[in-house]
Amino acid sequence: MKAVVLCAGFGTRMGRTVKPLLKVAGREIMFRNLKLLQDNGIDEFVVVVNNENRKAIEDFLKRNNFKYRIVVNPHPERGNGYSFYLAKDFVDDRFVLVMGDHVYDEEFVRVALRGDGLICDRNPLYVDIDEATKVLVENGRIKRIGKDLKEWCCVDTGFFILTRDVFKYAEEIIDREEIKLSDIIERSRIKVTEISGLFWMDVDTPEELKKANKLLVRKSYKGRGDGFVSRRINRKISLRLSELLVNRITPNQATLISFLVGIFSAILNLFSIPLAGLVYQISSILDGIDGEIARASLRTSKFGGWLDSVLDRYVDFLFLLTLSFVSNLNNLEWIIACFAMFGSFMVSYTTERYKGAFFSDFYNDFDFKFPGKRDERIFLIFLFCLFSFLGKFVIVTLLALIAVITNLRVVTTIYIVYKNKRFV
Amino acid sequence: MKAVVLCAGFGTRMGRTVKPLLKVAGREIMFRNLKLLQDNGIDEFVVVVNNENRKAIEDFLKRNNFKYRIVVNPHPERGNGYSFYLAKDFVDDRFVLVMGDHVYDEEFVRVALRGDGLICDRNPLYVDIDEATKVLVENGRIKRIGKDLKEWCCVDTGFFILTRDVFKYAEEIIDREEIKLSDIIERSRIKVTEISGLFWMDVDTPEELKKANKLLVRKSYKGRGDGFVSRRINRKISLRLSELLVNRITPNQATLISFLVGIFSAILNLFSIPLAGLVYQISSILDGIDGEIARASLRTSKFGGWLDSVLDRYVDFLFLLTLSFVSNLNNLEWIIACFAMFGSFMVSYTTERYKGAFFSDFYNDFDFKFPGKRDERIFLIFLFCLFSFLGKFVIVTLLALIAVITNLRVVTTIYIVYKNKRFV
Repeated sequence: MKAVVLCAGFGTRMGRTVKPLLKVAGREIMFRNLKLLQDNGIDEFVVVVNNENRKAIEDFLKRNNFKYRIVVNPHPERGNGYSFYLAKDFVDDRFVLVMGDHVYDEEFVRVALRGDGLICDRNPLYVDIDEATKVLVENGRIKRIGKDLKEWCCVDTGFFILTRDVFKYAEEIIDREEIKLSDIIERSRIKVTEISGLFWMDVDTPEELKKANKLLVRKSYKGRGDGFVSRRINRKISLRLSELLVNRITPNQATLISFLVGIFSAILNLFSIPLAGLVYQISSILDGIDGEIARASLRTSKFGGWLDSVLDRYVDFLFLLTLSFVSNLNNLEWIIACFAMFGSFMVSYTTERYKGAFFSDFYNDFDFKFPGKRDERIFLIFLFCLFSFLGKFVIVTLLALIAVITNLRVVTTIYIVYKNKRFV
Repeated sequence: MKAVVLCAGFGTRMGRTVKPLLKVAGREIMFRNLKLLQDNGIDEFVVVVNNENRKAIEDFLKRNNFKYRIVVNPHPERGNGYSFYLAKDFVDDRFVLVMGDHVYDEEFVRVALRGDGLICDRNPLYVDIDEATKVLVENGRIKRIGKDLKEWCCVDTGFFILTRDVFKYAEEIIDREEIKLSDIIERSRIKVTEISGLFWMDVDTPEELKKANKLLVRKSYKGRGDGFVSRRINRKISLRLSELLVNRITPNQATLISFLVGIFSAILNLFSIPLAGLVYQISSILDGIDGEIARASLRTSKFGGWLDSVLDRYVDFLFLLTLSFVSNLNNLEWIIACFAMFGSFMVSYTTERYKGAFFSDFYNDFDFKFPGKRDERIFLIFLFCLFSFLGKFVIVTLLALIAVITNLRVVTTIYIVYKNKRFV
């Protein structure tokens, strides 16, 4: 199936920029739409542009290896209906029509593509109703459409699944000076598919762009597998940072930054334990950013997830190692320290090895509430480090606590997997 | 598709036992055949038995939840052709015919099921040619079949893909006192499919049973991911032990035994380091048995693989920990010990986490020759432990060596994955 993307409008309220190429959550609006459509089986794009933005959009399409056909609307002032009409010779019988300046998320595109006709939202969550195009439905088909309808039941999402029949309604009004897409759609009396509660936005102003950015970053956070401290503290901070950073750095850069801050915190132990603990906790907060940015900007990678895990193990090991070293442990206390390091490691190993064995996520398969996750351990270490001035026993107690919690957690994990998966 | 399994013969050369129920590589011959057929889409079995073995075979089929229909041959002395003929009302147009006392491996069954007619082996590797049933082929169809053919080109594997037509050739000779399957097959002039070099055996004597047991255990060893010491030393011993143990213990029991021996070796460090090293190396050899037994007896489980990995980490950690403890390390030497423990851990973590991220095996994807695998580490530890009487510096040198090798290996792993997978 092909998709027609309308990009011939002028982004007047955005200072005459090429709106579809504005970045939201680390990606051009257009990249986001085309990528999501592509992931769902749309393999070619008919992009209607104007003479002004043609070069920028064509460069973009080339750079990102999309399979496209450019259609130039020499009279963009004749309206988006006219732009749509110009695409008629380049589509097959059934095709998708999408506005170039609307932002959708993955779930919206997936669900919308299962629909037919005009995709409407009965309960739009992120749209200014006054500015929205309203739709009146009768017997499952469109009756009226427009911004100023008094009587309406849902809102046009700018996403359509159409057949070529629609173009004949365009031909009926082709002599008009301005042809609105909504006029064509109203005449066609096409079906309406209602979907509700999913993310989509019409980005008309800089404020809406910022809002879309924020919402996409927030929606990238799933919470699965997060510990208590992460849910209550770390994520609240990291999500705000991700909003600011998502258009500026890549996920792998974020991974590297939090790794370097973590290594720095381990070195700091040699100079000031409380300061080291604080920086360690900061690195734990920063550690959330790579994943958030990656998901929000559709840049998740298997390599990124792998590298992040491996580097986290190094940071955790080195922090406990330097902390133990500066605490001048005796032989028996070193045993405790080793159990703390090993236990911390095994918390991750058991669940990661689980994924390698069962090809599903441990935290998806089990609602496992036992404490000892990384965010919780680091927060505990941070708190104890603040009180290190009270003497060596604070650090030894901390190490013993971590040793006990983590190894108990591992034993519990083994028990749960044994109970549920021993015949798998 | 259904399969007819002929079990009405008397295992005279095996002391009148129920041959299909003899165990080879931890499983009854019949379990092996039915399971492999089932794994390849055969969903029902028509099992022809005699009055003597009927109860034993029916109990077996029930116990293992196979979907079956029992057909009793009241005159087994009339031959295997007669047994075959009795199955005629219970099969569909196309079906599999297999001898109840032949042993096949997974690959044989998979390949054979893609064939048509009589499955023949041009180059049987594990069969006594004098005793084998030879086949003469003409234009892709069977011309003659028998034990004493002078002119022949391949050997009957006892595995057939047939259609109901064959029964009409049985009816032509139904009045004979003894009806051989080979007579029916020869008359039918069915197609011949040749496959070569795969594992199958006709088990007629206790010696052949032992040989099949040994071969199936050997074939269970793939070598992928094994280190140098494992290939050259450990596997040679563990495979012999597996041959002896495969009919006696389960894979999980083998996992537990090698774990307990490993833990015991760690405790032994408190008493005698050379002895501990020796027992540790023995546990490393025993560690191969669970996987060998599991594969040979078709008992591989995701849980087994997971548990084995987790327990290995505990053994490795505890051995280095007690070794460090008895060596009275100073603060700086403990740092070295921790790097050795951590590095040993990370060798496994990076590759296991790789599987969780990329859903493929690291050692499958890369031909990675860097030393530092578990079998190599343990052998190195074993050697150094023998010389621990020379003084503490031996142990410190060992720990430093392990720390360097393992962590270098991890860094190399990161580099390789970065180079090959950073865009995945």
